[in-house]
Amino acid sequence: MGNGSIFVWETLGTAILILLGAGVVANVTLKNSLGNGGGWLLINFGWGFAVFAGASVAAPSGAHINPAVTLGLAVADKVDWDRVPVYFAGQLLGAFLGAVLAWLAYKTQFDTHDDPGNTRGIFCTAPTVRATGWNLVTEIIGTFVLVIWILLSPGAKAAGDGVPQFGNSALGYAAVAFLVVGLGNSLGGPTGYAINPARDLGPRIAYAILPIRDKGSADWGYSWIPVAGPLIGGVLAALLYLVLPDLPA
Amino acid sequence: MGNGSIFVWETLGTAILILLGAGVVANVTLKNSLGNGGGWLLINFGWGFAVFAGASVAAPSGAHINPAVTLGLAVADKVDWDRVPVYFAGQLLGAFLGAVLAWLAYKTQFDTHDDPGNTRGIFCTAPTVRATGWNLVTEIIGTFVLVIWILLSPGAKAAGDGVPQFGNSALGYAAVAFLVVGLGNSLGGPTGYAINPARDLGPRIAYAILPIRDKGSADWGYSWIPVAGPLIGGVLAALLYLVLPDLPA
Amino acid sequence: MGNGSIFVWETLGTAILILLGAGVVANVTLKNSLGNGGGWLLINFGWGFAVFAGASVAAPSGAHINPAVTLGLAVADKVDWDRVPVYFAGQLLGAFLGAVLAWLAYKTQFDTHDDPGNTRGIFCTAPTVRATGWNLVTEIIGTFVLVIWILLSPGAKAAGDGVPQFGNSALGYAAVAFLVVGLGNSLGGPTGYAINPARDLGPRIAYAILPIRDKGSADWGYSWIPVAGPLIGGVLAALLYLVLPDLPA
Amino acid sequence: MGNGSIFVWETLGTAILILLGAGVVANVTLKNSLGNGGGWLLINFGWGFAVFAGASVAAPSGAHINPAVTLGLAVADKVDWDRVPVYFAGQLLGAFLGAVLAWLAYKTQFDTHDDPGNTRGIFCTAPTVRATGWNLVTEIIGTFVLVIWILLSPGAKAAGDGVPQFGNSALGYAAVAFLVVGLGNSLGGPTGYAINPARDLGPRIAYAILPIRDKGSADWGYSWIPVAGPLIGGVLAALLYLVLPDLPA
Repeated sequence: MGNGSIFVWETLGTAILILLGAGVVANVTLKNSLGNGGGWLLINFGWGFAVFAGASVAAPSGAHINPAVTLGLAVADKVDWDRVPVYFAGQLLGAFLGAVLAWLAYKTQFDTHDDPGNTRGIFCTAPTVRATGWNLVTEIIGTFVLVIWILLSPGAKAAGDGVPQFGNSALGYAAVAFLVVGLGNSLGGPTGYAINPARDLGPRIAYAILPIRDKGSADWGYSWIPVAGPLIGGVLAALLYLVLPDLPA
Repeated sequence: MGNGSIFVWETLGTAILILLGAGVVANVTLKNSLGNGGGWLLINFGWGFAVFAGASVAAPSGAHINPAVTLGLAVADKVDWDRVPVYFAGQLLGAFLGAVLAWLAYKTQFDTHDDPGNTRGIFCTAPTVRATGWNLVTEIIGTFVLVIWILLSPGAKAAGDGVPQFGNSALGYAAVAFLVVGLGNSLGGPTGYAINPARDLGPRIAYAILPIRDKGSADWGYSWIPVAGPLIGGVLAALLYLVLPDLPA
Repeated sequence: MGNGSIFVWETLGTAILILLGAGVVANVTLKNSLGNGGGWLLINFGWGFAVFAGASVAAPSGAHINPAVTLGLAVADKVDWDRVPVYFAGQLLGAFLGAVLAWLAYKTQFDTHDDPGNTRGIFCTAPTVRATGWNLVTEIIGTFVLVIWILLSPGAKAAGDGVPQFGNSALGYAAVAFLVVGLGNSLGGPTGYAINPARDLGPRIAYAILPIRDKGSADWGYSWIPVAGPLIGGVLAALLYLVLPDLPA
Repeated sequence: MGNGSIFVWETLGTAILILLGAGVVANVTLKNSLGNGGGWLLINFGWGFAVFAGASVAAPSGAHINPAVTLGLAVADKVDWDRVPVYFAGQLLGAFLGAVLAWLAYKTQFDTHDDPGNTRGIFCTAPTVRATGWNLVTEIIGTFVLVIWILLSPGAKAAGDGVPQFGNSALGYAAVAFLVVGLGNSLGGPTGYAINPARDLGPRIAYAILPIRDKGSADWGYSWIPVAGPLIGGVLAALLYLVLPDLPA
């Protein structure tokens, strides 16, 4: 598969991921939404099925839709290093576009919301307790589980050269969805579980640029943590993968 | 498959979709229902599994059960244009019949409900903030995701001539269910996510006709938006599909 | 498969169904349970995964675990009529045993509960509004959807002579679970969705017999409705199945 | 597969199980977590998908990640007895490590929590009503259902010598996840459903050792029940399995 195709599929898949992911947080956050106050399980199923939708669509490029996954697969020697920047670029562009679409879908809810202070959380993550080291640890642990699972899951195939990771069944990517719901349920409490640098950075840029009513700061001081933490977690998972006992044939 | 068979399967599948879909909203809305006040996640799982049930049953005709899906598949050259009206007719009739059945299943709850003003929402959608253009945008975006996913999902087969889209496993249509739960979680907040013209118009006609206790207006002024928006979204998804890079064989 | 084996598998599967099904209602109902007040979606996922567990285990006998399913399959000519009583007997015995096990698992919660009036609902169903005809209609409609789905689902195989209906994958019966969660979400509001005569009658007998603290009446006056309604619904689904257009090969 | 490999896979799988399982309880329990107060269904989906993640990763060793499963499989003659201690050791070590990781992920939430009395529940189970015999009965019944389902599920393969139990699909272990969500929904109310000796004992040891802020007693008096109960339940399930009628080929 050519670099252009990889770029297109990752852009499209990540855009759908963030459209639905930012969408569910908008639904729960904004006063005039039917899902207002819907709770953490709703948010987690929202993000999980967002991954399901985005990854299914991005199957031709291996459905990374997450730079930490791409980096982990590269360290594990399953993706060519010269394709990593192509993946990254598509993922970041897609995440930005998805956030713009989510804002358009909820435009009247943004315009009639009365607590502007909490709309940034629709776009990007923030810790409940600020502590640089521990916030990093939480993001590292969460992404470590995501990437080691992708590398070891019985259904995952070597993603090299854009081959779909979870086969050609409509339900294959439901497995990733369940894992992401689980990560949100279990490890999302402290930092809102970015576990994906594009998922946090793309929408944060969108929040900074879009003419959102009464918006506040984009909190750039925190922004490097949900980028660095997931990348470190992905690399650690790949390193563990490389030293594990041989899998049975 | 003959036109008569397509009509029968689409009628039956859409009837089950709307029976269960209107049913879950009745359950959450009506005072004397065990699910009263059950929340947005309950509603979304209700609609998602309603699609699962209806689409499984309508597998012989390709399980469209949604005019926006039929139109998108026709634009993508996967369904013959002269069959489109047959699909549409079955879907609209099925949606009407499903709404009547839901009303019968909840007859005593309708008769003992004490807030007649909110029973229309059991049948058809309404925006939380009325704004024609933005309401259209929300319905377009939601249906676009539904149809592009159907066209690109690794499990979907060309639906031409009524071949089942998601194969012959009982679980194949669970993939569509997860997507629909996700669309409700993420994009249902502003307009209640019709994303299906038959889903909205059929039950709205039923609401207008049925002798529902203390019923109000059917809100015909809004009724064209959940018809036009989904049809536009389905066409846009098909157009994008036609220009995407070739999928790997 | 011999009649003795059918009896054993149906007894075991239905016992697990009712142990988990009555269990989730006990968990939500009884004061000293961790799931107390957990809501309708919890109850529905509880019953859905109860069906998943029980049906998986009863796969050798076709996983009916419901007299309405057995009767529907017999009318549709997929089960020999002389085996119907064997299925019925196993299902009723299993349902009784499952209810006893659920009571044992929650023994200390029953003994420390302070509202004896609502423990009958852990065992058997009751309508929110008593109206014989309409209660029957609700049970008929719900069971009709269950049985027509089982007959038409792309994954269902002819159950004749005890062959598993949903194949030999651990996930095959998850499809039934999703359908049952959906039926509870959508059609469980008026009568608590027995949709299974054994599910209601077996535990009702257990309630009448067991030395449950401060128990009340078993409400035998209502007891025939969750038996007759599901049986009628199953027969109607089978009759519709017999007149539907031929399925594609 | 060598004993060393079994040990590694069971350690890794059980660590992920407990990291996510203790994580979801931390998320719901600790004041400064986004999932605080999220409810019983959130906890159950958390544990279910924790099993999904851990079992998928431990597929090479058969994905036991639970001494009660290992013992049941040994009694059913599907695992060599001399490997049982290897499984047990990996499971206990993994459970301990997973609990340490969960504590690290939630470190700032532990440090800012204001009700130290309830943090033990993040690590290990406790009954709502203390009654040694009945608490044992509840754990026996719950684990019995888990192990009989694993032995009889149509998707389970003989686990002898470390062959994966649920095949090589990413979704195979979702079946176990659904069962565990169901066990939590239905039988978790009285004792918090350990149904796994390592799940309870490993984190209890971690709780006793870790420098958790303002921690209390590890409640060693109760600790033998969630060890003995599950082991008894697993053995009883295996004994029933050995006397059931032959499964169809």
